[in-house]
Amino acid sequence: MSRGESALLTDLYQLTMLQAYFDERMNATAVFEFFVRALPQGRNFLLAAGLEQVLCYLEQLRVTGAELDWLRARGGFSEPFLEALGALRFTGDVHALPEGTACFIDEPLVRITAPIPQAQLVESRLLSLMHLETLIASKAARSVLAAPGKLLVDFGMRRAHGAEAGLLAARAAYLAGFSGTATVLAGIEFGVPVFGTMAHSYIEAHADEVSAFRGFARSAPANVVLLIDTYDTERAARKVVRLAPELAREGIRVRGVRLDSGDLAAHARAVRAILDSGGLREVTIFSSGNLDELKVKQLLASGAPIDGFGIGTSLDTSSDAPFLDCAYKLQEYAGTPRRKHSEGKATWPGRKQVFRHYAPDGTLDHDVVALEGDPQPGTPLLVPVMRAGKRVAAAESLASARARAAAEMARLPAHLRLLAPAHKPYRVEIAPSLLELAAELDRMPH
Amino acid sequence: MSRGESALLTDLYQLTMLQAYFDERMNATAVFEFFVRALPQGRNFLLAAGLEQVLCYLEQLRVTGAELDWLRARGGFSEPFLEALGALRFTGDVHALPEGTACFIDEPLVRITAPIPQAQLVESRLLSLMHLETLIASKAARSVLAAPGKLLVDFGMRRAHGAEAGLLAARAAYLAGFSGTATVLAGIEFGVPVFGTMAHSYIEAHADEVSAFRGFARSAPANVVLLIDTYDTERAARKVVRLAPELAREGIRVRGVRLDSGDLAAHARAVRAILDSGGLREVTIFSSGNLDELKVKQLLASGAPIDGFGIGTSLDTSSDAPFLDCAYKLQEYAGTPRRKHSEGKATWPGRKQVFRHYAPDGTLDHDVVALEGDPQPGTPLLVPVMRAGKRVAAAESLASARARAAAEMARLPAHLRLLAPAHKPYRVEIAPSLLELAAELDRMPH
Repeated sequence: MSRGESALLTDLYQLTMLQAYFDERMNATAVFEFFVRALPQGRNFLLAAGLEQVLCYLEQLRVTGAELDWLRARGGFSEPFLEALGALRFTGDVHALPEGTACFIDEPLVRITAPIPQAQLVESRLLSLMHLETLIASKAARSVLAAPGKLLVDFGMRRAHGAEAGLLAARAAYLAGFSGTATVLAGIEFGVPVFGTMAHSYIEAHADEVSAFRGFARSAPANVVLLIDTYDTERAARKVVRLAPELAREGIRVRGVRLDSGDLAAHARAVRAILDSGGLREVTIFSSGNLDELKVKQLLASGAPIDGFGIGTSLDTSSDAPFLDCAYKLQEYAGTPRRKHSEGKATWPGRKQVFRHYAPDGTLDHDVVALEGDPQPGTPLLVPVMRAGKRVAAAESLASARARAAAEMARLPAHLRLLAPAHKPYRVEIAPSLLELAAELDRMPH
Repeated sequence: MSRGESALLTDLYQLTMLQAYFDERMNATAVFEFFVRALPQGRNFLLAAGLEQVLCYLEQLRVTGAELDWLRARGGFSEPFLEALGALRFTGDVHALPEGTACFIDEPLVRITAPIPQAQLVESRLLSLMHLETLIASKAARSVLAAPGKLLVDFGMRRAHGAEAGLLAARAAYLAGFSGTATVLAGIEFGVPVFGTMAHSYIEAHADEVSAFRGFARSAPANVVLLIDTYDTERAARKVVRLAPELAREGIRVRGVRLDSGDLAAHARAVRAILDSGGLREVTIFSSGNLDELKVKQLLASGAPIDGFGIGTSLDTSSDAPFLDCAYKLQEYAGTPRRKHSEGKATWPGRKQVFRHYAPDGTLDHDVVALEGDPQPGTPLLVPVMRAGKRVAAAESLASARARAAAEMARLPAHLRLLAPAHKPYRVEIAPSLLELAAELDRMPH
């Protein structure tokens, strides 16, 4: 069993609360919603992602016998409770924004409606999955906007925060419009296209660069992209020009070169000139090396003749904004709306829906967050995805979610598509009836 | 099989290079070293961590039949190569800094000596593990320095970047001196002490706060820590005072309260006064809510009467520095030292050792990085941990690594123990013979 599939990949307090709910016979229906409280500095929108992993998690949720034994040995839990915990399955309903939907603050991305022990237990893992993929998809979207039509490859697994971060970053980046990833297992698990050529170590292990280029080309004739910055970039480009006819006689075509260090714009121009004057106009230039969407935009704005980008650490760690201020909060219990009042962390109570309004040109205009039962104009965004613990439809393909993300990004107003913070953030209104309900709850005694 | 255990959790280029090494019959011994190029802004030292996970990975490294089938279907690999890949095991040597060792830039934390296909293949995952745990242990160490003697609990799993990030963050933080974690599975997998009480949702699901406090106390009588900021912190503290005698009659003692929002210093003072004047001097105050080591230090410096801290997102994402500029580089192949010259990314060639020099008072004075064969004064830090694919000793316990980290931090000079950037960074000298070797390699043609 992978670690992410263990029901005990959770916070201990979920279990202490479940013991208390059990003792107090509290098993009524709870409604929790996952939402983002604030956009990180410099982000103008989010792309919802992670739902598919959440649904898989809910489908297979169960505490194993070995895990129950560990809890028993640890103490603090009653036998009748542990028995109930072993029998617990997720039998609730899930409403959510489809993956790839553009979304904003205060909007529920996922709503869980289930007996409170179930809805409570899943909090930590649901947060973890929705947070990570929404974070990375939203970061990746910025590179997609910065480099339309370019090849964009996720290179970040090695500095992602562990195995799952690397895999889900590859998935989320592809969903947001990346061309693919370097991570093989993401190809196996999610069908993300996988790219890769060679490292500096391969070049260095050879007596000289030309031997390395020749050896690699013969070994991978369909995928000859040569790394040319190990020693001297322009000299290496000239070596490629001299080697190309020899390889051509063997029926091998050099497809591209990769730059990974130095002044990428200057090197790309010099290398392009060397390749072109050497008759290698078809050979593409791919670049990597501490890139992020701002550097990519700058390189392209400067006219650097670069055809593709490998983006690693900045993408997989969302390095400028490595987390979202997100939460999963109780909004209703036993039919009554609930509200947390904590200073600076108050929530909007009740089961909510997001209604989207479009401008005449088809771009997003504003959203209204309203109680589900409060009829509103606009397009409702949350849809039912699970009822009584079963999916309402087969899993959506990643290709379909990716197409949605592309369509959504195409409908973003121009000022939200900029990498710089929008002067005017996207408008998310709280419907009057929701404001009233919140005020009413604030007046109640506790 | 967990995702982290798949040999194909790697970059595709490792496999394309392995195919080329196979075709070129390159199988000589390679030496790769993992090191950090630069400390992130504001970090004065690192704590090495992740070695135990690397050794487990190397021990079980193998490509499964299903994975070979996937590669076969994808294309680009020869049958004889795939057969060799299926038979590949790690048979090399590993030298490393023991976990918890204080370390600095340019110092190898791990050295791999193995036939080049093996040493190459393991790059991506070795980097991922060493990077993540060293990053988080080094971040956690700052909170430990900021709050000596306080209870420090990792609360970050929900916003860690996925399952493995949450688990390994719990391990790395404990190694660095945290008291424990909220993450149950980290207790099961690594024996990290697990802490936890209740969330706001538990309070909100009850008709009123006092019912929630009473229900929880009866359900978890050995662990009564009550969350008091859901509605009004000081009012809730007074409710605790009124409830305590009733619970005492049932033999239940309130152990603590938790604050999670607002001005924590002001609330802690007010709550302390309420508890003390209510006869609850023994009840501790635990705080959480967007904390990091700087806020913890500030709270304690202000005299806030807080006994423990839950630190979450900032710890598990190392939010101020979410990655390390680290690398795993070829330093020698077939007996010859190798050097990457790429601009701004040149490496120190050859098999290296770190020699540590101490001041007369026992604190760290400076380190010298030298070629392994170059006799030096000082204490050598890298030790052999694996020979021919087998550990030289049983796995070190996490407790032992944690004790080492504590001893190392106690020996750090005062200016490195500050949270602010040290005016004078720790001195890491490159030995003259290593400088000479690097210069010599620079003069060689490629």
